[in-house]
Amino acid sequence: MNKNSSNIMALAPSTSNRRETVCIFGTGDFGRALGHKMIQSGYPVVFGSRSTQISSLIPKGAEVLSHAEAAQKAAVIIIAIQRQNYNFLTPLTEILHGKVLVDVSNNLKINEYPESNAEYLAQLVPGAKVVKAFNTVSAWALQSGTLDASRQVFVCGDDTEAKQIVMNIVRALGLTPLDQGSLLAAQEIENYPLQLFPMWKFPILLSFGLAAFFFFYCLIRNVIYPYVYENKDFSFFIAISIPNRICPILALTLLALVYLPGVLAAIIQLYRGTKYCRFPDWLDKWMLCRKQLGLVALAFASLHVLYTLVIPIRSFVKWRMSSQIISQVLNNKTEPLDTTNAWLSDSYLALGILGFFLFVLLGITSLPSVSNNVNWREFRFVQSKLGYLTLILCTAHTLVYGGKRFLNPSSYRWARQNWNNLWCSMVSSLSCPLRLRSTCTYTYPHRSTCTRA
Amino acid sequence: MNKNSSNIMALAPSTSNRRETVCIFGTGDFGRALGHKMIQSGYPVVFGSRSTQISSLIPKGAEVLSHAEAAQKAAVIIIAIQRQNYNFLTPLTEILHGKVLVDVSNNLKINEYPESNAEYLAQLVPGAKVVKAFNTVSAWALQSGTLDASRQVFVCGDDTEAKQIVMNIVRALGLTPLDQGSLLAAQEIENYPLQLFPMWKFPILLSFGLAAFFFFYCLIRNVIYPYVYENKDFSFFIAISIPNRICPILALTLLALVYLPGVLAAIIQLYRGTKYCRFPDWLDKWMLCRKQLGLVALAFASLHVLYTLVIPIRSFVKWRMSSQIISQVLNNKTEPLDTTNAWLSDSYLALGILGFFLFVLLGITSLPSVSNNVNWREFRFVQSKLGYLTLILCTAHTLVYGGKRFLNPSSYRWARQNWNNLWCSMVSSLSCPLRLRSTCTYTYPHRSTCTRA
Amino acid sequence: MNKNSSNIMALAPSTSNRRETVCIFGTGDFGRALGHKMIQSGYPVVFGSRSTQISSLIPKGAEVLSHAEAAQKAAVIIIAIQRQNYNFLTPLTEILHGKVLVDVSNNLKINEYPESNAEYLAQLVPGAKVVKAFNTVSAWALQSGTLDASRQVFVCGDDTEAKQIVMNIVRALGLTPLDQGSLLAAQEIENYPLQLFPMWKFPILLSFGLAAFFFFYCLIRNVIYPYVYENKDFSFFIAISIPNRICPILALTLLALVYLPGVLAAIIQLYRGTKYCRFPDWLDKWMLCRKQLGLVALAFASLHVLYTLVIPIRSFVKWRMSSQIISQVLNNKTEPLDTTNAWLSDSYLALGILGFFLFVLLGITSLPSVSNNVNWREFRFVQSKLGYLTLILCTAHTLVYGGKRFLNPSSYRWARQNWNNLWCSMVSSLSCPLRLRSTCTYTYPHRSTCTRA
Repeated sequence: MNKNSSNIMALAPSTSNRRETVCIFGTGDFGRALGHKMIQSGYPVVFGSRSTQISSLIPKGAEVLSHAEAAQKAAVIIIAIQRQNYNFLTPLTEILHGKVLVDVSNNLKINEYPESNAEYLAQLVPGAKVVKAFNTVSAWALQSGTLDASRQVFVCGDDTEAKQIVMNIVRALGLTPLDQGSLLAAQEIENYPLQLFPMWKFPILLSFGLAAFFFFYCLIRNVIYPYVYENKDFSFFIAISIPNRICPILALTLLALVYLPGVLAAIIQLYRGTKYCRFPDWLDKWMLCRKQLGLVALAFASLHVLYTLVIPIRSFVKWRMSSQIISQVLNNKTEPLDTTNAWLSDSYLALGILGFFLFVLLGITSLPSVSNNVNWREFRFVQSKLGYLTLILCTAHTLVYGGKRFLNPSSYRWARQNWNNLWCSMVSSLSCPLRLRSTCTYTYPHRSTCTRA
Repeated sequence: MNKNSSNIMALAPSTSNRRETVCIFGTGDFGRALGHKMIQSGYPVVFGSRSTQISSLIPKGAEVLSHAEAAQKAAVIIIAIQRQNYNFLTPLTEILHGKVLVDVSNNLKINEYPESNAEYLAQLVPGAKVVKAFNTVSAWALQSGTLDASRQVFVCGDDTEAKQIVMNIVRALGLTPLDQGSLLAAQEIENYPLQLFPMWKFPILLSFGLAAFFFFYCLIRNVIYPYVYENKDFSFFIAISIPNRICPILALTLLALVYLPGVLAAIIQLYRGTKYCRFPDWLDKWMLCRKQLGLVALAFASLHVLYTLVIPIRSFVKWRMSSQIISQVLNNKTEPLDTTNAWLSDSYLALGILGFFLFVLLGITSLPSVSNNVNWREFRFVQSKLGYLTLILCTAHTLVYGGKRFLNPSSYRWARQNWNNLWCSMVSSLSCPLRLRSTCTYTYPHRSTCTRA
Repeated sequence: MNKNSSNIMALAPSTSNRRETVCIFGTGDFGRALGHKMIQSGYPVVFGSRSTQISSLIPKGAEVLSHAEAAQKAAVIIIAIQRQNYNFLTPLTEILHGKVLVDVSNNLKINEYPESNAEYLAQLVPGAKVVKAFNTVSAWALQSGTLDASRQVFVCGDDTEAKQIVMNIVRALGLTPLDQGSLLAAQEIENYPLQLFPMWKFPILLSFGLAAFFFFYCLIRNVIYPYVYENKDFSFFIAISIPNRICPILALTLLALVYLPGVLAAIIQLYRGTKYCRFPDWLDKWMLCRKQLGLVALAFASLHVLYTLVIPIRSFVKWRMSSQIISQVLNNKTEPLDTTNAWLSDSYLALGILGFFLFVLLGITSLPSVSNNVNWREFRFVQSKLGYLTLILCTAHTLVYGGKRFLNPSSYRWARQNWNNLWCSMVSSLSCPLRLRSTCTYTYPHRSTCTRA
């Protein structure tokens, strides 16, 4: 342990309670915001600047000196300038020897430079102890004190004591330092604030694509078809009925996509005869976004639940029920209880409830604070056993609901006749005078007649 | 690094696995509980006390000595006595030199003394290494082992090695040490256990005030008005109908209050022409409790969803529906499907569902473990973009539901006539014999006639 | 601080950015997986093995040497072999002096050996610095990069610098090191991955037992009884109606069991006259699983809410409603609004909603990341005050719903006659020819007559 380190130790608030002076190079937005916050937290602050005139923007109580003078006043120097201007530090190498240099810079693009800004700084000023910190904090949030988001400050550096000093400053500002190890971690820390949900992109794009496809499918099947053939306006189905068909389809599809790669991986392993071989890239990427796929599936499942639960409040449903009852009364016939129907209806609802319940449980266990509290064995148990049970329950829910109709030709009736009919109807609609309804006979070539609506 | 520190290093469990003796000054509740727990965890414990008689309350296996003798037996001394009695330590300064003193004390009020208890202790015994710890742990919980709450122990101190030793003890007791930096943090650590949801006070008071106002408004409008004028008893509206009007109003109001200060701040910044200027105090405080405002809004929105979903199960609603159907049958008329109405009903429900869904998403991202895992850019994206989208969807939900009635005079009919009529009705009710109903003509002065109910 | 430690300091990536060589003893699954991951992260890896032939399974880029040669190439040696084979390290004691040995082993049973594997290793190789790490990480997850579960690596060891070096490696692999203190913590760390929800066993078994009991009770009461006596097939009640009776019963019972031990403990303390006395073991265990009991209760309450909200969608309920309306129409009588009934129905729903809302709030505050952010006083406030309020609201919800029927003999009618009748009916059913219905007179001995159904 050389002399410098014991010098630095003396800077740590050990004997007196006064905080040690901090020097900030650069009087830009971030430098001023950080200086402001530090003065508030009791640190004497010295700015190092090219022009030593005190501007009105400099926080009150801060001194402004030349870079060399400012650097001599403090053991910790925060480099709040752009990487492109780091060159000006080279002449100061002598003065900066043994000092703690805090690199707070960010880049505009991920991996913009071959080495991280902090490592570049360490190369420029070899005698200094470079620590990366504060780059994930917003200047505006620092200044206004509204740190709603993460208070975490990632700190990395090769000198343990320099890191400790910076971490103490971080804590004094009311933030939480997270030791990320040596300066090699700087690259990752610099990339971090540039990301925007990198793992979520694929699941969200996939689900939007699928949602758009099923939306148009349902639109044609449930709105356009009855409008064209039966002249009924069910356009309001767009609000609830169609979303409530898309959501469960997507939820089940995405949930299946969560568990499919595991099965594929097992098949590949069996085929290759070894467990420790790299999977193909697409499978790797797929496996890495399984959690996100599952959470998107859960989102669609939750929407499905909400859409289903409001069914009895819908004006259309109330109207349909009352017209059914009225028609029963007027026809003077009362339907007996259909036990098979009651069984089907109840069991499909019960399966859906249990499936959704387990799905929510899976979602809760994937919260970081919960999954950090379970060990690997417990996590496997929940995500694998409970996951497959959820998939089975949700599939059973779908089968009981729609199984009968699945291979029933009447569900696909329109498919055979669809384009045929659509064409026929459109032609005949256009060829009929207004207020007359066209009837289309399904022969080829189409013959259409116009009747009074 | 002086000789003492290397002495202390030797105390850390490095070569042998035996735990080092810990001394506890004070045999009060907390001292005994801590001693008990330490003996359970394998630490030899020595109590330092004025009277060295072993009371039945002292945990079995602990020695009780005079303060001076006890201090000499251990390198770590826990000061489990009141701040008022710290003076007795002054004569022991010589013995305590180089020892680790752990201050576990709490105050009764926030910022009761100018300096924290730990800093006061460090001033009294200058040669000792003071570490603040254990003050957030309950004696009872320690003793009974029922640590349901946070297992976090905040530790701060100026000597890194002393802090490490105390943190190892904390871990050995099954608790999680959190390094809070230098002894300057002691003030905050001492204030911490005295707080009771300080950020929640304003949002909760505000929402209670608004809830009370809207409750009485709705009570007069929906219960008292029909009772007085139409002699209908709708008092059961108090249970669900009225709360289900208050909840959405409050949810939307509070959600708007979350995003209003940001807009105000932007206006102030534009007006002042600078981004880095302190906001007025009221705006600052408002901005700091936005998260809490949002969560209270989410609570009201969730209640609104539950109150809405139970509508079809309500006995009153079932009765109303069946009487509507019966009256349709008896009048022999069937209503056709009102497509506009179906559109309105479905789109208002769909907007509500999507708004609530995004609102829950916002709530989940504000969980500490989730918001710690997103960076500033991601947090801004969620809280700002998704937040405004939520606000827009919820406002649209309200407008589609109530827009038509918003400026419809019939909604305010009673407002013009209200006090007039109320007065008239009350007077005439009182002036009519029992079992006769009063009719009131809306002239001035009121003339009332009594008719058979 | 001896010379070795400064040697080790030199290994930390301080001057150059190249990562230091890591040696792995053992070429089994875990050793290879770890080596693979380390090479990916930029570490030169040397395997120490009995046979120095490079197998195809060894990750590309790794060297394979004899144990002695490999150990000399690195300052950090990962011991990826079984505890039973640790003996072979004894001859290497000289070479391993001052090296950092990382114990990654796990046992098959909890507390399989008297001392932890890491402590055993430290005894075998006295000069080495043993650090326990990586044992909670799955080899497969390391290899395939799919670390969905916890990325936490528990690290413990007596030498602070050795621990720092290992923690830096952990971070470089993209994992989160958690310092667990001295090597004494190794026992707990080794037991950790063998647990499978130890605290959840009792609550889940208890709730399954109670659920089974109430299921058969309801099955007999609501399905078998009407089938036998009234020849009605209500078997579809098994899907929703019966679960929706079991869930609220269990939720309320388990919630009461959360708060009962606190009351019992208070009584015991009053009786014993002291607050600081160990509770009986059963009470201790009960108190320790209160959180889990509460969460299981919340799960049942959530299921109850879902089962209740789907009621109006159920085919049976729709049929019952329409047949009630039709019978009213046919009998030409309209029921007036029953205000008492409306009050009961609404207030029972409102109490349930509020109770469930508070229950969910309790559940959210018990999330680790939330409960870590509240202090002891706040936690007590939420869990005790809000908890009791929840219990009161839920009990009131039950009383308003079922209070009238609670001591109504008609609810228990079948109880008096049950076995009597069941016997009678079964006998007479069997004795009647098919297609004839038996009537049973409730005298003793039973007389049954057969009538046309």
